[in-house]
Amino acid sequence: MSLQEKLFEKLEAKASQMVETRRYLHENPELSFKEENTAKLIEDFYKDKDVKVTSNVGNGYGIIVEINGRGPGRTIGLRADFDALPIQEEADVPFKSKNDGVMHACGHDMHTSYLLTLGEALIELKDEWSGTVKLIHQHAEEVPPGGAKSIVESGILDDLDEVYGIHVFPMLDTGTIGLIEGNAMAGRSNFDLTIQGRGGHGAVPQSTRDALVAGAYFITEAQTIVSRRMNPMDSVVVSVTAFDAPGGYNVIQDKVVLRGTVRYLEEENKVPAYDAMSDIVAGIERSFGVECSLDYVYDYPVTYNHPKETRHVEEILEKSRGTYFNEIVHSKPSSGSEDFSYYLEKAPGTFINVGTKPEGVTEPYPNHHPKFDVNEESLMICAKALGEVVLDRLGSGK
Amino acid sequence: MSLQEKLFEKLEAKASQMVETRRYLHENPELSFKEENTAKLIEDFYKDKDVKVTSNVGNGYGIIVEINGRGPGRTIGLRADFDALPIQEEADVPFKSKNDGVMHACGHDMHTSYLLTLGEALIELKDEWSGTVKLIHQHAEEVPPGGAKSIVESGILDDLDEVYGIHVFPMLDTGTIGLIEGNAMAGRSNFDLTIQGRGGHGAVPQSTRDALVAGAYFITEAQTIVSRRMNPMDSVVVSVTAFDAPGGYNVIQDKVVLRGTVRYLEEENKVPAYDAMSDIVAGIERSFGVECSLDYVYDYPVTYNHPKETRHVEEILEKSRGTYFNEIVHSKPSSGSEDFSYYLEKAPGTFINVGTKPEGVTEPYPNHHPKFDVNEESLMICAKALGEVVLDRLGSGK
Amino acid sequence: MSLQEKLFEKLEAKASQMVETRRYLHENPELSFKEENTAKLIEDFYKDKDVKVTSNVGNGYGIIVEINGRGPGRTIGLRADFDALPIQEEADVPFKSKNDGVMHACGHDMHTSYLLTLGEALIELKDEWSGTVKLIHQHAEEVPPGGAKSIVESGILDDLDEVYGIHVFPMLDTGTIGLIEGNAMAGRSNFDLTIQGRGGHGAVPQSTRDALVAGAYFITEAQTIVSRRMNPMDSVVVSVTAFDAPGGYNVIQDKVVLRGTVRYLEEENKVPAYDAMSDIVAGIERSFGVECSLDYVYDYPVTYNHPKETRHVEEILEKSRGTYFNEIVHSKPSSGSEDFSYYLEKAPGTFINVGTKPEGVTEPYPNHHPKFDVNEESLMICAKALGEVVLDRLGSGK
Amino acid sequence: MSLQEKLFEKLEAKASQMVETRRYLHENPELSFKEENTAKLIEDFYKDKDVKVTSNVGNGYGIIVEINGRGPGRTIGLRADFDALPIQEEADVPFKSKNDGVMHACGHDMHTSYLLTLGEALIELKDEWSGTVKLIHQHAEEVPPGGAKSIVESGILDDLDEVYGIHVFPMLDTGTIGLIEGNAMAGRSNFDLTIQGRGGHGAVPQSTRDALVAGAYFITEAQTIVSRRMNPMDSVVVSVTAFDAPGGYNVIQDKVVLRGTVRYLEEENKVPAYDAMSDIVAGIERSFGVECSLDYVYDYPVTYNHPKETRHVEEILEKSRGTYFNEIVHSKPSSGSEDFSYYLEKAPGTFINVGTKPEGVTEPYPNHHPKFDVNEESLMICAKALGEVVLDRLGSGK
Repeated sequence: MSLQEKLFEKLEAKASQMVETRRYLHENPELSFKEENTAKLIEDFYKDKDVKVTSNVGNGYGIIVEINGRGPGRTIGLRADFDALPIQEEADVPFKSKNDGVMHACGHDMHTSYLLTLGEALIELKDEWSGTVKLIHQHAEEVPPGGAKSIVESGILDDLDEVYGIHVFPMLDTGTIGLIEGNAMAGRSNFDLTIQGRGGHGAVPQSTRDALVAGAYFITEAQTIVSRRMNPMDSVVVSVTAFDAPGGYNVIQDKVVLRGTVRYLEEENKVPAYDAMSDIVAGIERSFGVECSLDYVYDYPVTYNHPKETRHVEEILEKSRGTYFNEIVHSKPSSGSEDFSYYLEKAPGTFINVGTKPEGVTEPYPNHHPKFDVNEESLMICAKALGEVVLDRLGSGK
Repeated sequence: MSLQEKLFEKLEAKASQMVETRRYLHENPELSFKEENTAKLIEDFYKDKDVKVTSNVGNGYGIIVEINGRGPGRTIGLRADFDALPIQEEADVPFKSKNDGVMHACGHDMHTSYLLTLGEALIELKDEWSGTVKLIHQHAEEVPPGGAKSIVESGILDDLDEVYGIHVFPMLDTGTIGLIEGNAMAGRSNFDLTIQGRGGHGAVPQSTRDALVAGAYFITEAQTIVSRRMNPMDSVVVSVTAFDAPGGYNVIQDKVVLRGTVRYLEEENKVPAYDAMSDIVAGIERSFGVECSLDYVYDYPVTYNHPKETRHVEEILEKSRGTYFNEIVHSKPSSGSEDFSYYLEKAPGTFINVGTKPEGVTEPYPNHHPKFDVNEESLMICAKALGEVVLDRLGSGK
Repeated sequence: MSLQEKLFEKLEAKASQMVETRRYLHENPELSFKEENTAKLIEDFYKDKDVKVTSNVGNGYGIIVEINGRGPGRTIGLRADFDALPIQEEADVPFKSKNDGVMHACGHDMHTSYLLTLGEALIELKDEWSGTVKLIHQHAEEVPPGGAKSIVESGILDDLDEVYGIHVFPMLDTGTIGLIEGNAMAGRSNFDLTIQGRGGHGAVPQSTRDALVAGAYFITEAQTIVSRRMNPMDSVVVSVTAFDAPGGYNVIQDKVVLRGTVRYLEEENKVPAYDAMSDIVAGIERSFGVECSLDYVYDYPVTYNHPKETRHVEEILEKSRGTYFNEIVHSKPSSGSEDFSYYLEKAPGTFINVGTKPEGVTEPYPNHHPKFDVNEESLMICAKALGEVVLDRLGSGK
Repeated sequence: MSLQEKLFEKLEAKASQMVETRRYLHENPELSFKEENTAKLIEDFYKDKDVKVTSNVGNGYGIIVEINGRGPGRTIGLRADFDALPIQEEADVPFKSKNDGVMHACGHDMHTSYLLTLGEALIELKDEWSGTVKLIHQHAEEVPPGGAKSIVESGILDDLDEVYGIHVFPMLDTGTIGLIEGNAMAGRSNFDLTIQGRGGHGAVPQSTRDALVAGAYFITEAQTIVSRRMNPMDSVVVSVTAFDAPGGYNVIQDKVVLRGTVRYLEEENKVPAYDAMSDIVAGIERSFGVECSLDYVYDYPVTYNHPKETRHVEEILEKSRGTYFNEIVHSKPSSGSEDFSYYLEKAPGTFINVGTKPEGVTEPYPNHHPKFDVNEESLMICAKALGEVVLDRLGSGK
C-alpha cells in the first residue's frame, strides 16, 4: 500500500468529521479579524497532537501548525483561510448561520474543514514522510489589509520551499479541478470616497450642494474608467459597493460616503485606474461644488501561479484523474483577489480551484451571494488533491 | 391702556421665560411621534391654569388648549408644532442638543416657546376678551402623515372660525414679517424606491445585476422630471434624500433603497410628477434588469393662505410697523411643505413668516441644516404679531 | 358708422387677401437674415401707397412703414416679424413649404399677413385719424442677435409713444386673446459648447479622449442646473438643442459641438445660470481630460408688458368680447423669448397673445414643431384687435 | 545568389517607386466603395505584365492578380486593402490629402504600395518559383459589409492553400514585426440608433419628448455594457461614434440618430453585447417616452490566426531578424476588426503586424486619427517580410 493510498484511506475514514466540522463552522461564522471562536476551535483540534502550534500570528488570529516528518526535507506550506462575510444568509440549509448578518458565503468553512482533516491525516502518517509541512490557518482574507501579508512579514514562513492552497467555486462542476499558469487572480485597490456638500431642506435645493446627486453622477462617470480609459485587451473592474447615505424624506444630504473596489489582472493598470478615478472625482468637485476626499488603497497584488509548480501539480493530479475527481481544466484567470498572492511572492507554488457546484443545480449562486451554496463532496476532493500534491513534494526531497 | 398694550406689556415681562423655554427645548429635542417629554413640559405648563387641556390628540402627543374668554364669540386657532429633526447638530451654541442625532433645526422650539408665552398672557387677560382661543400644540409636523391631519379628523377643531400660525425663517431678516396670498407652500409627495438586483462578488459584475449602479442612473434621470417634464412656469422640486446601501468593499449590492420628496406649488402637477417618476423607474428596470418597487405617497397638500384673511392680517400688522418689527414683505411662495395646510382646509386663515436671521450673519444656514441658527429677538415678534392678530379677530365678535 | 366699424368693414373686405398672402409666405419661407424675397414682397405691397417706407433698417431686411394721419398726435408702433425656421415641414397643408428645411413654424407668416392688411386699411382711412402709425416689419426674430435691437438702435423709433405686437399660439383656442401684466416672456442666453478630445479608432478607446461621451455626460449634468441650482419658485429652462457629431462607425470623435438655450423669467437668474453651466463644463473637462470652450451669449432680455398699457388694452378689447372673438384670458408667462422686449424697453406697450388652435384638433402641435399648424380665422382676430387698439390710442390724442 | 536575395535586390531597386506610389495614393484617397481611381491605378500598373487581372471582383472595385510560376504548386494569397477614411487630414505632410474630408488614416496606402512593388518583383522572378500567387487588392475594408466577404463568396479564391496579409501600426516601433496566434483581432457589430421624440420650442420642454436628452442618457448607460455586463476577463468595446443632431438654438430635437461599433475578441460575447444594448434601449424608451429603433448588424467576425501557419511565419522571419528588421514580438490581440477574417475562414494563414512609428516621435497618433502618420521605411520591411514568407511557402511545393 503506497503512502498515498494510506493517506486516502485515512481521509475517507474521516469523511463525516470533515462534513460535521464544515457545518459547525458554517453555523458559527465570524467576521474578519474577529474569528476568536474559530481560532479556538482550530487550536483545540491540534491540542494533543505532536505538532508545534503558533497562535495569533500576524495582525490577527492566524495559526501556523508545523508538522515535522521523520527526517530533513522540504518545507511545504498549505493554506486555508477561515473568516466569513458580512452577508445575511438566505441559503436554505439546515445549518444556516446563527450569527445575524454574518455568513460563510465564500467557502472558507470548506477550506478550514478539509485542511484540519488533511492535517490530522498527515500528522498520523508523519513517520512515513520527510521534511516539514506548515499548515497556514489564516484569518481575515476578506478584509484588507488581510492576514497573509502580516503572517509573511512575521518571518514564520521564511523557510518555505513551496506553498499551495485551494479555493472552492460553485460555478465549477463538482469533480472538476481548475489550474491556471501565470496571472491567475486580480490585484486589488479599495477606495472610500467622501463627498462633502452643503445640506439643507429637501425643498430648497438652490441653497444646498447636493452631495447625494454628486455621488450618483460620480458612479455613472466611473463606468467610463473601464469602458473608455483601460485597454480593452486588459482586465480591469471598478465596482462601487456601498453608498452610505441613509436618511429621511426632508433633508438634502450634507455628506455621503461611497466605497468600492478596483481589480486588475495586469499590475501595470494599478496606477492608471487610480488616475482615472482621481480625474473623475476632481471633475465632480468642480461640476457640483462639493469637496471630495478619495481614500484609495493599493491592496492585494496580482496572484501569480508559478508556471513550473503549476505544471508539476497538473502532472501529479493527472495520474488520479477519473478516480476521486473527473477532470482538470485550464481555468480563465479570475477578477477576484486573494491575499494568497503574498505567499506566492515568498515561495513558488500555485493556487488550485476546486469545483463545488451543488447537485442538481444548473445556475449556482456565485461566491459572496446570500444564497451561496456548495457540494460537500468536494471536501474530499480538496483533501485528496492537496494531500497527494504535498506527499509528492515532500517525498521528492530537497 | 388698550388691551393690546396690556398684552404687549405682559409679553415683555415674560421675555426671558420665552428665551429660556426655547433653549431648554433646543437642548432636549425629540423626534416626530416621540415627543413624550416635550408634550409633558407643555401639559405641565398649563397645569394650574384655567383652561381645558386635551392631550394625545390625533395620532400622537398633540395637545389642544382651550381658553374661553368672558363671553361668546369667535373661535380662533393658533398653532405651533413641537417635533425635531434627525440631524446631528453642528451649530455652535451653548444650549446645543443633548440628544445625539436629533436637532431642532427647523425652529419648532421657537414656535412652541412663543406660543406658550402668548397663551399664558391670553389666559391672564381672558376676562377682557370674548370668544374662544384654541392653542394647537402639534406633534410630528416633520414626518408624514404628520399630526395636523389626525388632529383635524379628531373633530376637536370642528368649531374653528379662523386659524393662524407662524413659521420662523433665518433667510428672512429679523424684524421682517412675510405674507403670501394664495398658494404659499408646496404640496408634497414622498417616495421609497427599492431596487432589487442580484448581488455577488465585487469582481464579477457580469453575474450580478448591480442595484447600486441602477440607483445612481435613476438619480441622474430623475433630474429630468423637473428639467424636462414639468412646465417651467410652475414650481416642482424632486429631491432624492437617502441612498441606503451601506456595505464593504467586496460585495456588489443585492438590493438598495432610495428615498426622497417631491414638491409642487400647483396641485395639478401632483399626478404628472408621479407619472414621470414611474416612467423613469420602469425604464431603469428594463435597462438594468432589476426589479423596482416604488412606494409613492401623496402627502401634505398645498398650503393655501385665504386671501381675505391674509389681507386682513396685513392691515392689522401694518399699524404696528416700525414698532416691534420693521417691515412687511410679500414673500415668494416656498417649496417647503407644511401640514398647516390641513387646518386651512378646515377654516380660513393664513400662515405667517417671521424673519429670524442671526445677528451679524450675512449668509444664514437654511432650515434643516446642521448649523441652522436663529435670532431669539424674533420670539417677541412672533408673540406680539400673533397676539395682536388674535385680539383683533376675537374682539370684532362673531 | 364709427371709425372702428369702417376699419372692420375694410378688413373684412380684405379677408381673402390676408389668407392668400399668408399662404404665399408659408410656401416661400426664408431663414433669418436671408429674407430677401419676403422683404421685397412687403416693399412692393406699399409701393404705390402714400407712406414713407424705409428699407434695410438695422442689421438686415427690416422695413419701417410710416403712415401719417390727418394731424399731429401720438406715434404708435405695430410690429410683425417675418423670418422662418430651419425646420423641415411635416404639416399636411396644400401650401407646404417649397424651401427644403425651412418652415414658417412659428406663425410669422400670419403676423406679416395680418399687419400688411391692417396697414393697408389704416392707410385708406388715414384722413380720419390723427398722429402717426409706424408699421415695424421686422426681420430675424428667431436668430440672435435678432433684428429688433438693431432697429431700435438705428434711432428710427425714437419718437414712439407706445408699441404693440401680437403672437399667435395654437395652444390657445381660436377666439381667445391672452394678456399678461409684467414679466411675460423669458430672457434668453444661447450657448455653443465645443469639446475637444483626442480622436482615434473606435476600438481603441484607451488612446483617445472621447469627446462624444464627455458631451453626453455634460447633458445629463446640465439637467441639474434647473433641478438643483435654481430657485424652484423661479422659472428657468436649459435646453441642449444640438449635438453636432456626425460620423461613421469606426472613428471616435476628436471634437464635438453642442448648442442650446437658457431661459429665465427673472432677470436675476441670468448670471447664476451661466455660473452653474460654467461649473459643469469645468468639471467635465477635469473628469474626461477634454478641453471645452463655452461660448455663452446673453441674448434677448425678459419681455416686460407695461401694466398700465396692458390694462388699457384689456379695457378696449373687453368691449368687443363676444363679437369677433370670444374670450380674454390672463395667460401664464411664457418661457419663450422675443426680441419684442427691446421695443418695450424703448416705449410702453404690451405684447398680445392670439389663439390659433386648428379646428377639430384637441392636441395641437406647439410652435417650432415640424407639424405646427394654425387656424386662419385668427388672422382676422389679429387685424381687428390690433386695429381697434391702435385707433383708440391714436384717437385719444397726445 | 539565392532566390530570396534576388527578390530583395529587386525590391531595393524599387524602393523609391514604393514611396512615390504610397505618396500619390495618400494624396488621392478615396472612400470605401468609391475607389474608382485607385482601382484604375492598380489595373494600369499590371497592364503589360504577364498576369491574369480580374477587376470588379465582389461588391466593388476588388482586383485579383494571378501570377503563375514555372510549374504546379501551392496557391498563396497576399492581400492589401486600398480604401481610405472619412477624416479631414490634419497631419503636416507635403503630400497631404487633396480630397476634402477623406484621408488614408489607416495606412492602406502603405499596404497597396508595398504589395504592388512586391507583386512586380514576384512577376519578374516568376520563372524561378512554382505554384501560384494571387494578389488580392481589396476595396472597402473600412465600411461594412466590406469587400473581403464578397470576394471570397465570388469563388475566385476557392483554390487558395494559404493566405497572408499585413497591417502597419504606428504604435509599434519601425523595425518591429508583431505576430499573434489564435484570436488576433476583434469581431465587430455596428449599430444605428434612431430616437424619435416629439420636437418643439426650446423653451417649452414639457410639451416635448427630448430625443437629444434621451440620447445622452443612452450613452451614459451604454458604458455599463462593458463595465457591468461583460466578463472582465474577456475583451469587449462599445463606442458611440456619432451623434447626429445638428441644429440651432431654439428647437428641441424631434429625432436624433446615434451610431457606433461593438467589438469582441470572443465570439461568444457577440449576442450578449447586443442583448445588453437592447435592454438599455428599451429602458430609455420607457424612461423618456421616446421611440427607439436599433439597427444592429453583426459584422466582421473575429480574425483568427491559424497557429501552425503563424508559428511557421515566425520561423521564416526569425532567420532574417537583425537584417532588414530588428525584432519579432508576440503582440497582444487588438480590439480593431478586419475583414481579413473572411480569408482566414477560407484558408489557413496569418495576419502580420508591421511597426511604422514615425522617426523621433514618442507618442504617435493612432490609426484613424486626423494626424495619423507613418515611417515610410516600413514599406520595405513589409515587402521583404511578405516576400520571404511567400517564397518559402511556394518553394516548399504542395
